[in-house]
Amino acid sequence: MLEDRIRRPSLLDRIVTPKEAASLIQDGMIIGMSGFTRAGDAKAVPVAMAERARTDPFKITLLTGASLGHDIDRMLTEAHVLARRMPFQTDPTLRAAINRGEVMFVDQHLSETVEHLRSNQLGPIDYAIIEAAAIRLDGGIIPSTSIGNSASFAILAKKLIIEINLSQTLDLEGLHDIYIPTKRPTREAIPVVGCDTRAGMPYIPVDPEKIAAIVITQEQDSFSTVEPADAETSAIAGHLIRFFEEEVRLGRLDLTLNPLQAGIGTIANSVLSGLADGPFHHLRMYSEVLQDSTFDLFDAGKLSFASGSSITLSSACAARVYADFRRYKDRLVLRPQEISNHPEVIRRLGVIGINTALEVDIYGNINSTHVNGTHMMNGIGGSGDFARNAYLSIFVTKSLAKGGRISSVVPMVPHVDHTEHDVDIIVTENGLADLRELAPRERAERIIEHCAHPDYREALRSYFERASARGGHTPHLLEEAFSWHLNSRDRGDMRQSKLAAAAE
Amino acid sequence: MLEDRIRRPSLLDRIVTPKEAASLIQDGMIIGMSGFTRAGDAKAVPVAMAERARTDPFKITLLTGASLGHDIDRMLTEAHVLARRMPFQTDPTLRAAINRGEVMFVDQHLSETVEHLRSNQLGPIDYAIIEAAAIRLDGGIIPSTSIGNSASFAILAKKLIIEINLSQTLDLEGLHDIYIPTKRPTREAIPVVGCDTRAGMPYIPVDPEKIAAIVITQEQDSFSTVEPADAETSAIAGHLIRFFEEEVRLGRLDLTLNPLQAGIGTIANSVLSGLADGPFHHLRMYSEVLQDSTFDLFDAGKLSFASGSSITLSSACAARVYADFRRYKDRLVLRPQEISNHPEVIRRLGVIGINTALEVDIYGNINSTHVNGTHMMNGIGGSGDFARNAYLSIFVTKSLAKGGRISSVVPMVPHVDHTEHDVDIIVTENGLADLRELAPRERAERIIEHCAHPDYREALRSYFERASARGGHTPHLLEEAFSWHLNSRDRGDMRQSKLAAAAE
Repeated sequence: MLEDRIRRPSLLDRIVTPKEAASLIQDGMIIGMSGFTRAGDAKAVPVAMAERARTDPFKITLLTGASLGHDIDRMLTEAHVLARRMPFQTDPTLRAAINRGEVMFVDQHLSETVEHLRSNQLGPIDYAIIEAAAIRLDGGIIPSTSIGNSASFAILAKKLIIEINLSQTLDLEGLHDIYIPTKRPTREAIPVVGCDTRAGMPYIPVDPEKIAAIVITQEQDSFSTVEPADAETSAIAGHLIRFFEEEVRLGRLDLTLNPLQAGIGTIANSVLSGLADGPFHHLRMYSEVLQDSTFDLFDAGKLSFASGSSITLSSACAARVYADFRRYKDRLVLRPQEISNHPEVIRRLGVIGINTALEVDIYGNINSTHVNGTHMMNGIGGSGDFARNAYLSIFVTKSLAKGGRISSVVPMVPHVDHTEHDVDIIVTENGLADLRELAPRERAERIIEHCAHPDYREALRSYFERASARGGHTPHLLEEAFSWHLNSRDRGDMRQSKLAAAAE
Repeated sequence: MLEDRIRRPSLLDRIVTPKEAASLIQDGMIIGMSGFTRAGDAKAVPVAMAERARTDPFKITLLTGASLGHDIDRMLTEAHVLARRMPFQTDPTLRAAINRGEVMFVDQHLSETVEHLRSNQLGPIDYAIIEAAAIRLDGGIIPSTSIGNSASFAILAKKLIIEINLSQTLDLEGLHDIYIPTKRPTREAIPVVGCDTRAGMPYIPVDPEKIAAIVITQEQDSFSTVEPADAETSAIAGHLIRFFEEEVRLGRLDLTLNPLQAGIGTIANSVLSGLADGPFHHLRMYSEVLQDSTFDLFDAGKLSFASGSSITLSSACAARVYADFRRYKDRLVLRPQEISNHPEVIRRLGVIGINTALEVDIYGNINSTHVNGTHMMNGIGGSGDFARNAYLSIFVTKSLAKGGRISSVVPMVPHVDHTEHDVDIIVTENGLADLRELAPRERAERIIEHCAHPDYREALRSYFERASARGGHTPHLLEEAFSWHLNSRDRGDMRQSKLAAAAE
């Protein structure tokens, strides 16, 4: 049985306990771990690392693909193992340590981390700790439910620790397409010209002599925590369906649309699922994480092909999909996140990118990451890779948060992740603002009238009108621009602002 | 003689006066004009348009490559011809009209405008008005000193007006490489894999029947207004030379470096010229505008090849270069700005991008465009195309402006054009901050200590320390973040801030 998973006999004697594998990690090392949006993360060795650090303290720089499951970031934070963490995270305990300045978090575009490694601007990686479905006879690694940065971590690391996860189906073999760009400045074009292009190999090629330890696990991936669609997400999907229908009517798109990307999380996932209610067909995805919505669209007969870097599903959806994975497999490919998120490919394919904003300002600048401009939530993730290079860059958000105490449309965002140059369309449950080819003053009118919640609209109009009277291409009142956030920070309610009071 | 310039005999009878050509333009039209950083602009018809509008008012949407020379934007503004203008400008009169809200200015990444045209999100263009060195027998247009967006304007426009400029040397023929990307989502890879790749044709292919009018001109391009290097720009160049030498020592680069880009203007131009003093050789450029510095490096024997979208020179440099243009021609290529600035190519080649910041904040966010957060200067231009996709994204600025009353390093920039994710290196005359793989709090320390002017350093430290005490991944005091700009706006001097006072 194990010979199905470790097909190179000489590697069988490298099987160790998680504790033994964790003992290889030394203070000050740079570690690259598999894991992208909870999928395919290393599950045993990091737990043993946290355990060991309680009596034998050490600190590392930890690189992953994106977020991890299994509370691994929490455990490593509590054990004070993390000196530095990149390029993305979603764990509340780690987030708090980042915001206290205890863990140095480097928030990077997800396509870029391995470029830095490859050019020796970062690294070298001492150990890559990679979950695999199997190791081939030639030592090649067959990843599990994500690729993320695992391929480049494994190829560039001095040594490897492999977690063979018996709960990951061997049907995953053949799903992956490992293409690694050649070195700059003599790089060739990346040969991905369609969602379904296969340009590389179905495994990660590594020198088997680099494999220092193998650990056997059988724990499933953490399930996603997406919530079901609600009235607001359905309204957002409805606005988008009508917008796409109009683009089709104008001859800009046909009913297969362009390849779709949807960001991580409940809103983008629900909106994508909602497209099943439109007249579209033969849709394709070129995205980073494939969520329940991908399989909803497959099952609705709407989706022809999906390319991603990970598969992260709810418990119910995972049960449905993995019970008969072969049914989906020939319509799926997983790629390194460098390729799923590569500016070259996203621009070439003309991807329609749908990402979630924490808040937007009246000119269309987007804050995706920082609460009140200072406190990190998760990170920019792949949203910048897609928003900048997309054919249509769409941001979605509910117009209110915290029971109406917070408006997601504000005078000025106190942290900018995406500038107005990279934002074509903003959608809330109230409506859709098409910002293409508009100047800032025109954008403000559309965003206020179409996207802001009616409770905040008058205050936004007041700000915009008074700022416009002072002049400028992008009118602002700097003395007042953050007054809403100061109220939010100090009293938890934006409505206490002078502006809102004046409007009442 | 004219037959050398208009080689298709049937077109000779389409020669008209500028006034006759201008009469073709109707109210409400979308016009695409040649011109990129003052080079190769249409010089006669827009002047006649402004003249006509004084008695026969009309308004247009004007698209160009980038900035125009010959006060054309001023004249069109004063004649109230411009309803909408994109994607870049540098004219003081137009800028004032933009800031009054009278002209709707759409500030775009320079690589993107023609993508919007091609996908019918913008346009169609009614008339393209293009300066040419000549028209071929087959009707193909040989551009002059810039390509900019001219090729796609000409191909996509309903009708063409060509200005044949007799002052532009016919030696320009063969300089251009017109490659137009195929349509999305079935686009092929852009086949530019080196600075010297030629992927297209040396002329713009158009149906000669679309040529509605031809105007003969003989006015030279406006000369560039770059100022000579000074102590600060030399210091910035010195810091960069030492940085590159260290990167070579670490094995990340060799002495030919990676392809170089330098933004428009005095500082980036001077810094690039300054690289001649380093140990580097066989340099290559993959840039947008080729300025005096390009030819300084050629003449110093340091530069092997330069790719751009325009050539914009000072009067002295132009005299030197065009007196013997064949000496340089086989080491030069001009491309459409979509290709010179294309994310795909910039990322592939690993370009080192050197762009100028108006101001930077302590976390490395860049304001390139808006004075005091509200008033537009020129536009983002190509800086975003390069900064996002560069191997190394470098921003340069002098640390002081207005005789020391303004610091270019501020607590928070009130307008973000480039987020900290896209900024690797910041250099002022005081020093260089290498921000790669650093968290925001670490970035702040480096920027304050290495880049800020000593007169402002203590105030910045005070802000950062007090903000850090409040916590957050990116610590800020929202109530104070813009106090320096409010002082600048209201009193023309940042030093009047409470912070600066406390520091004194």
